Amino acid sequence: MKIEGKNAVAEAINAGTTIDRLIVQKGLSDPSSQKIIDSAKSRAIKIFFRDKQHLDRESVTGRHQGFVAEVTDYKYTPLENVLQSTQNQKDALILILDGIEDPHNLGSIIRVAECSGVSGVVIPKHRAVSVNETVIKVSSGAASHVAVSKVTNVNDSIKLLKDNGFWIYAADLGGQSLYQAKLSGKIALVVGGEGNGVKQLTRKLCDDVLTIPMFGQLNSLNASVACGIVVYEILRQR
Amino acid sequence: MKIEGKNAVAEAINAGTTIDRLIVQKGLSDPSSQKIIDSAKSRAIKIFFRDKQHLDRESVTGRHQGFVAEVTDYKYTPLENVLQSTQNQKDALILILDGIEDPHNLGSIIRVAECSGVSGVVIPKHRAVSVNETVIKVSSGAASHVAVSKVTNVNDSIKLLKDNGFWIYAADLGGQSLYQAKLSGKIALVVGGEGNGVKQLTRKLCDDVLTIPMFGQLNSLNASVACGIVVYEILRQR
Repeated sequence: MKIEGKNAVAEAINAGTTIDRLIVQKGLSDPSSQKIIDSAKSRAIKIFFRDKQHLDRESVTGRHQGFVAEVTDYKYTPLENVLQSTQNQKDALILILDGIEDPHNLGSIIRVAECSGVSGVVIPKHRAVSVNETVIKVSSGAASHVAVSKVTNVNDSIKLLKDNGFWIYAADLGGQSLYQAKLSGKIALVVGGEGNGVKQLTRKLCDDVLTIPMFGQLNSLNASVACGIVVYEILRQR
Repeated sequence: MKIEGKNAVAEAINAGTTIDRLIVQKGLSDPSSQKIIDSAKSRAIKIFFRDKQHLDRESVTGRHQGFVAEVTDYKYTPLENVLQSTQNQKDALILILDGIEDPHNLGSIIRVAECSGVSGVVIPKHRAVSVNETVIKVSSGAASHVAVSKVTNVNDSIKLLKDNGFWIYAADLGGQSLYQAKLSGKIALVVGGEGNGVKQLTRKLCDDVLTIPMFGQLNSLNASVACGIVVYEILRQR
């Protein structure tokens, strides 16, 4: 697959992602482009300088900003490894995405996860978007730093997390106000898909539902914005 | 211009937007579609039932969900009117967007504004995206309920708001932690563009800079997510 755009390529290089080849637009001489080229060279990545038309053809997202890196497919992290990494933390946070379909939302949520120090993001194998080129681009490179687990059954993952001492919150309508909840300890936050929110069966498995107060006529925020607000309220309370 | 998608069309009808004609895909019989058709009929909006191919051709965003409404151009609200509406509020909140270029971000920010009861959103006339079809679709109809002001010079607007008793915060890197600030009274929040954040000159006009704490390797969140986190922290403190 391909990683495209300045930030995404720079973060992939920083994260030590194996890059099979890096295609760079000829003639770029601005400092930020030069910095990426230098760091690629210092890691002995094969660089090919090509004209813009060539990159336009190679690009999947259409927004390459002069940089397209070819990498092996995105490496998901087994949920067991994420769990292991949280064993000695008393306040780990894991995100469980219950059917996010829009790559912009998934990319933006992975960016929230990276910026807030979340331990891992769980996505379902079916009926949801995977980590593709657009997700990586929108995540601004965060996907190279965050552990993403792809699971067959989200509800099984919730049970596994419960068994490992996590308190499971759903972010959804009709629960207690986010600002009245006491948010401490190991937390897994379930965020629903764009259309219908958290699924009924999944919601029943959750220990509690957190609701962001609404003051207008709509009843919900964009999924990635809602996720950011809840994650940062959890961090604030710590 | 066109308003497309179920939520956006439903909210436009609810908000009393003048719809010149509404094109609906033939054969839609699910409850949510029927509800929109009924409310359009009850307001005597001209409805044309056409096949899917026809709507695909009429659609600008390509994601019409069976509903395309033709309306006169988006109606911006003069900033003076927004100011007037806040005169008797002791804790009004206005968003000033300093060069948002991505329609997904603008739509998502307008949705934040609607859900959080913000009094108005200020956008610049130049070098920024306007309220177009994609913005309205992404805002999930919020653009029909929120006052958006389009101004020639953002810095002049900041000065006007200052003269009217607003405290001006920039959401940007290198300021005081969002969670240490005392956020009360009339507030205008300046949110920078996707590339470079708040412009130098604009930042100098602000009374203070609020920074969301970062715990990873990236230094910034998506603009609409950052905006949502800061707006909801302001609301929480009230």
